[in-house]
Amino acid sequence: MTDPAVALREILGPKGWLSGDDAEPFQRDWLDRYGLQPLGVARPASTAEMAAVVKACRQAGLAVVPQGGNTSLCGGAVAAQPNAVIVSLSRMTAIGEPDQESGSIAVDAGVVLAALHDALEPHGLMFPMHLGAEGSARIGGLIGTNAGGSQAFRYGMMQDLVLGLEVVMPDGAVWDGLRAVQKDNAGYQLRKLFCGSEGTLGIVARAILRLYPTPKQQASALLVMSDFAAAVSFGAFLRGEAGEFLTGLEFFSDVGLALALKHLPDLAYQLESRGDVYLLVELASGSTRVPLDDILASALEWGMEQRLVVDGALANSSAQRARFWRLREEQPEGQRLEGEQLKHDISVPPGAIARFIEAGAKICDNILPGVRINPFGHLGDGNIHYNLSPPEGRSDFNGKAGEFAEALAALATEMGGSFAAEHGLGRAKIAMADRNRAPIERDLMAQLKRAFDPQGTMNPGVLVRVRQ
Amino acid sequence: MTDPAVALREILGPKGWLSGDDAEPFQRDWLDRYGLQPLGVARPASTAEMAAVVKACRQAGLAVVPQGGNTSLCGGAVAAQPNAVIVSLSRMTAIGEPDQESGSIAVDAGVVLAALHDALEPHGLMFPMHLGAEGSARIGGLIGTNAGGSQAFRYGMMQDLVLGLEVVMPDGAVWDGLRAVQKDNAGYQLRKLFCGSEGTLGIVARAILRLYPTPKQQASALLVMSDFAAAVSFGAFLRGEAGEFLTGLEFFSDVGLALALKHLPDLAYQLESRGDVYLLVELASGSTRVPLDDILASALEWGMEQRLVVDGALANSSAQRARFWRLREEQPEGQRLEGEQLKHDISVPPGAIARFIEAGAKICDNILPGVRINPFGHLGDGNIHYNLSPPEGRSDFNGKAGEFAEALAALATEMGGSFAAEHGLGRAKIAMADRNRAPIERDLMAQLKRAFDPQGTMNPGVLVRVRQ
Repeated sequence: MTDPAVALREILGPKGWLSGDDAEPFQRDWLDRYGLQPLGVARPASTAEMAAVVKACRQAGLAVVPQGGNTSLCGGAVAAQPNAVIVSLSRMTAIGEPDQESGSIAVDAGVVLAALHDALEPHGLMFPMHLGAEGSARIGGLIGTNAGGSQAFRYGMMQDLVLGLEVVMPDGAVWDGLRAVQKDNAGYQLRKLFCGSEGTLGIVARAILRLYPTPKQQASALLVMSDFAAAVSFGAFLRGEAGEFLTGLEFFSDVGLALALKHLPDLAYQLESRGDVYLLVELASGSTRVPLDDILASALEWGMEQRLVVDGALANSSAQRARFWRLREEQPEGQRLEGEQLKHDISVPPGAIARFIEAGAKICDNILPGVRINPFGHLGDGNIHYNLSPPEGRSDFNGKAGEFAEALAALATEMGGSFAAEHGLGRAKIAMADRNRAPIERDLMAQLKRAFDPQGTMNPGVLVRVRQ
Repeated sequence: MTDPAVALREILGPKGWLSGDDAEPFQRDWLDRYGLQPLGVARPASTAEMAAVVKACRQAGLAVVPQGGNTSLCGGAVAAQPNAVIVSLSRMTAIGEPDQESGSIAVDAGVVLAALHDALEPHGLMFPMHLGAEGSARIGGLIGTNAGGSQAFRYGMMQDLVLGLEVVMPDGAVWDGLRAVQKDNAGYQLRKLFCGSEGTLGIVARAILRLYPTPKQQASALLVMSDFAAAVSFGAFLRGEAGEFLTGLEFFSDVGLALALKHLPDLAYQLESRGDVYLLVELASGSTRVPLDDILASALEWGMEQRLVVDGALANSSAQRARFWRLREEQPEGQRLEGEQLKHDISVPPGAIARFIEAGAKICDNILPGVRINPFGHLGDGNIHYNLSPPEGRSDFNGKAGEFAEALAALATEMGGSFAAEHGLGRAKIAMADRNRAPIERDLMAQLKRAFDPQGTMNPGVLVRVRQ
């Protein structure tokens, strides 16, 4: 039998097959928690090459690990077994011409999200997905993890934005589902099923995505809210009064603001007062005839009258808007620079955010008194990035990481929410899913996995554990 | 062994089990094309009863056929084998209290869509799905068929509006996925998979649905367009200029208008000119500060300058708005009253609608010269209800029904679209799917079916044929 590495190099050519030191940059995950040395990294330049690689791996019984931009926070895109082959999307980066009248575009799975944004800009079109990793994350990975981000409450998650897919199946066969229509009820919604399947059912090679016209005007405001309950009420009010314009409804806490200001000296906070919680509101419109600033100003006025809004400012320039957004966007970085941290990717029904914050604080303070809680995220869909830093004066969590994670997962579950809102399960959260979800749900997922990948070679050990 | 009918009556009580003549109203499908006499009709009043019924049927080896409002146009909700048990959702009609701050509601699967609309009205909330059958169609059936309707391009199809589900599995086990969050990436998106599975993987018992605030104002216009290409261009313009307000973008043809006016004497067409194609445009806003009428009037003006719009009128009252909508809504009825007809549920990329109409006309006229083509539907998502009436003076299609269906399906497929846009496959379109979709796609669906329903008792013969 041929050495599989030799066979793969043959398929891919020297630029397409990396091993030894060349493979090293692909080995570890974003948070440096997972990743064994792979047999090598396959970098196919086409669907046909990708299919040949997968087929060869299947024949040799090698695990296949799809990798997009390698920004997974759950270890879903690196190897956990020896001799795995990482299939990197990094050489499949073609962006098609957008179809203006249909509002869609065909792209290779290796396209970086920010590159897609840039490519669409001159056409007056946008792909409405924005998230912290957009400079690295690739479309295939975003589909595989069913990415959400800050505009998901308005435009949907990846599953809502995918019209068609081309997927290399675990045996190397290619499913061509590259249709360009929203309405296609000819059987099970395979295109949706692959969204969020974390590369365990196949590898997305190409996609047709839904596009929207770029808005012609925006209005942004940074608000100090009296508390989380006020933020929730104000969010509901905005949905009622300006719902069709809402493109951003981000919140962060004073804990996070303080950390960001402490560690990022060029960051500026320019409102007069501080509070427990801040809201970044953004409206956008495709019509120039909408008095967007007035609508936002009126909403603020109402919020102040109701004593929900303590202080606030409308952005009067795109520079000021960028400064507002940076306060929100630097939340993860400020906390990272503070030292050790624990991240939890929670969602609860939006109306329950304040209750979650209150109950979560009690739970966390019981586990480790003084632990600093830094929740930030997306008010519109109830997605809370519930991050912790050790108590002042401590540098660690006294071995309580697992206890925090489980208690918060149980609380989110109890409130009708999720402990894996938008980052997926990867390798990190399989046991948590097994504990927090009913056996029938996990069994259904195992059955699905077995149906699509009976030999279990496609990203094994991610999302669901399957006995072969 | 107990007689299964006796066992089922025992589970359900006399109100919950109908047989003989009492079962007759449930036997045939909407178009009266499908439906054998069932063993009986089970009408469970709760998830537990539904689960007990399904379990008993499984044990007795009886086919289970879920039925919502029985409005399927593809024969998906009636029996095709002797001794099947129809499980009707008609007694599970509870509507929960809407969660205002989260924008969601829990409902039983038997709730009629129009009843949900009515229940939400006093809360200032809406469930944004509208379709012809809303007075009969039930939520469970709408989920099972992944319904679309006239607002799908704006708010999504059923799969985009379902947050959580409770499903009775083919063995009678209950999957409780009643979570109330948009962002839940804890594994495969089972909730999305059940949308459009046509009752072949389980029966939806309850659902948590996404709600939106009711708009505070609307503006509607009926337009005569110069041709289909003009309608497509004008639709694209509206998406750019007023995209966030667009809640309706319906088209119909002069063939359909003539039939409706001929057969429905109380119908009134009040514009001065007629044309080949008409567009019904509707804008809505949650803000009272948006000059919605002005925005629509300006768009019309632009359309007239560009010679896309030939004539048009803005609705100046809700009565006039209703009259405009009736012209569109009576399209199916007008055609039905004309006599024999053929229905095709097509979607193509919205920008390709005019090309489809043109190419479709040539194809149809070749098959049966003079055949009358009556396309109407949803411009925003490219969904064309492409209906045919026999040539003037004929009362039938000369045995060409299959030829029309196959030729139009092939054309839609070739253009990147679907031959089963929003009505599903049911029993009617399985062979068509087998011909127009790649074997790998049909095989994946069969594998899915086998994984969830290994004994093949759940709505057998619908969506995909599986060799047991």
